[in-house]
Amino acid sequence: MHETQTTARWQRAQACIGRGVDTIDTPSLVIDLDAMERNLARMAAFAHEHGVRLRPHAKMHKSAELAQLQMHHGAVGVCVQKTDEALALAHAGVRDIYISNEVIAPAKLLRLAQAVRDLPTKFSIAVDSALGVARLAQALQTAGVGAPRSVDVLVEIDVGQGRCGVAPGDPAVALVQAIATHPVLRFAGLQAYHGGAQHRRTAAERTQAMDAATRAVQATVDALQAAGFAVPLVTGAGTGTFSLEASSGVWGELQAGSYLFMDADYASNETTPLAPVFEHALFVKSQVMSLNAAHAVCDAGHKSHAIDSGMPSVWFPSGLSYASGGDEHGVLRADADQPLPALGEVVWLVPGHCDPTVNLHDFMVGVRGGLAAGLVERVIRVDTRGCLG
Amino acid sequence: MHETQTTARWQRAQACIGRGVDTIDTPSLVIDLDAMERNLARMAAFAHEHGVRLRPHAKMHKSAELAQLQMHHGAVGVCVQKTDEALALAHAGVRDIYISNEVIAPAKLLRLAQAVRDLPTKFSIAVDSALGVARLAQALQTAGVGAPRSVDVLVEIDVGQGRCGVAPGDPAVALVQAIATHPVLRFAGLQAYHGGAQHRRTAAERTQAMDAATRAVQATVDALQAAGFAVPLVTGAGTGTFSLEASSGVWGELQAGSYLFMDADYASNETTPLAPVFEHALFVKSQVMSLNAAHAVCDAGHKSHAIDSGMPSVWFPSGLSYASGGDEHGVLRADADQPLPALGEVVWLVPGHCDPTVNLHDFMVGVRGGLAAGLVERVIRVDTRGCLG
Repeated sequence: MHETQTTARWQRAQACIGRGVDTIDTPSLVIDLDAMERNLARMAAFAHEHGVRLRPHAKMHKSAELAQLQMHHGAVGVCVQKTDEALALAHAGVRDIYISNEVIAPAKLLRLAQAVRDLPTKFSIAVDSALGVARLAQALQTAGVGAPRSVDVLVEIDVGQGRCGVAPGDPAVALVQAIATHPVLRFAGLQAYHGGAQHRRTAAERTQAMDAATRAVQATVDALQAAGFAVPLVTGAGTGTFSLEASSGVWGELQAGSYLFMDADYASNETTPLAPVFEHALFVKSQVMSLNAAHAVCDAGHKSHAIDSGMPSVWFPSGLSYASGGDEHGVLRADADQPLPALGEVVWLVPGHCDPTVNLHDFMVGVRGGLAAGLVERVIRVDTRGCLG
Repeated sequence: MHETQTTARWQRAQACIGRGVDTIDTPSLVIDLDAMERNLARMAAFAHEHGVRLRPHAKMHKSAELAQLQMHHGAVGVCVQKTDEALALAHAGVRDIYISNEVIAPAKLLRLAQAVRDLPTKFSIAVDSALGVARLAQALQTAGVGAPRSVDVLVEIDVGQGRCGVAPGDPAVALVQAIATHPVLRFAGLQAYHGGAQHRRTAAERTQAMDAATRAVQATVDALQAAGFAVPLVTGAGTGTFSLEASSGVWGELQAGSYLFMDADYASNETTPLAPVFEHALFVKSQVMSLNAAHAVCDAGHKSHAIDSGMPSVWFPSGLSYASGGDEHGVLRADADQPLPALGEVVWLVPGHCDPTVNLHDFMVGVRGGLAAGLVERVIRVDTRGCLG
């Protein structure tokens, strides 16, 4: 029954293909495909010019179709955060997937090991504990994965985020030594991502954070080399700092994801020198469903968009601000001397944070030719929505 | 492909039935069925004792199975907020559904009208504009719904929430007059819900808000009666105030929903005199996937639970506090002299806000016999997850 109605919504969206933006139901997640493709090209060109690999984080768009589009434009693969995300994308045909996060549950590791054994996708994974290394090796053995096959393992170091990862330097060496005891594992490099630095508003703050992160990475590379281990790759970076990692001399791979859609939060950052500028490409189409003298109420609340990075901004019409009205409503107030929208009028929102916004939707509607007068070109499935495990 | 992996996750959960809580994957949404059933019985007894109808809001649990359980225990039906929620529950067999919210889009109203025509479910709906009334009547006419069939329409008045609804008094009379011009519509009463009052922490604040709301409702009833309209029903109330509506003498139907699960936010309210006390029945099962000297990191972030009403509280083990670690992580810190949990250890969270937390999951795992040593009894589908339209 559930699937029946999900399928009905999907088919209704499909029926809009070739028709105008006005046929899209509200609230819906809409991609401006022209803007997205310009963002895609800008980042691909940046990575090429700087001689770094691009492995965008698919936790942002959660879509096999967009992952493959990125790989078609030069990305070496994608990142995910969860085992179930990796499995969903692999089953949908993505052929190089890195779980840039720790997995400790034996049942999850076994699922991953079976996928390593059975699917044509290349999987790699981060670790930050000896237990994680031992359980991964055990799961691969249980699944019957052995030489000549091996799984690439990256050691996560904490470069300032203060979340996962071992401390830079000797703790990383100890973990690489643990990896080296398992022939089915291959030490493939360091995972070094500073999530907190992405959202510091001034370029100077971000530069300062990444300078410290660079020193932490370099000290770890030095310690590993002194212990006899080559470091094939350092991978990390997000949309707020990637130009700093690219020019650091230590990172060889960028994981930025949000550049493709650009959310309101990243757009609030002061631009980093030399970094390309990206456009908003992801919108919530909403409409006014209640109106009074003081405000209009639109049909998009925090069931339509995530609010962890603040409320959405109003893209069109201009002169409106959005305040929370709960799960299903947004309260729109007009700036001084500006009119309120009419009952039934369409209101376009820019989500504060792309990743968890996409997770609220089963699909995204791709529009060609602009939000005002464009046509629906395709409907893009959110393949890893709800992939928590 | 998407459905394949969603089905795989559903089947993995199903395979836990009859097995221990330890077999449930993390992060998962888990219902303590014993606690939920005690909550169910307490509210059913309360409504019965006070001679008011109970029409719980299914926007909370989003489940046809739980809606039918509530109706089996005396609820007259359920409320929803969106057309697509109504359609999903109706297709899953729920036979009395009230959309306690405005719908203005002709396409949505036509879907509703077709369901009125084709399904055995009784639908009713709120309005707060003449345009909404006219479009509803038009949609019913387009779908071929006519006498002797009619749709119950409730006029929403703003009793202090400051969101949707016409002002109390004469504006409501004008709207009822508009309804009366359409034989296919029947004026069924007033929708009067004060959402903001639900979360005021002291009983005195909530009582003050509901006293004002009661006066607004009474003034509207008086104005309607003076204009020759009987008011068959006043419906509203939430888990924070329902005992006040029940004893007001004007409300005849309670829409409280969260009582079934009780979230951390509602549990922070000072208890209202004479109101039954409800237990936490909804939890996120999580586990530690990274650990260092300062903190543990669990695998449940704001993709597992909503954060609009604050972070989840840690139910077990005791002595821990939860801080945001982003979409996929929670940072757990220990109180003074308390230990951190071990790597792989299970951590149980109580979500800040039930409704949008449930919306993040495809299913809830029902456990009998307690979280510590219970068995999985059944897996409950979230039928209206993602029903935005």
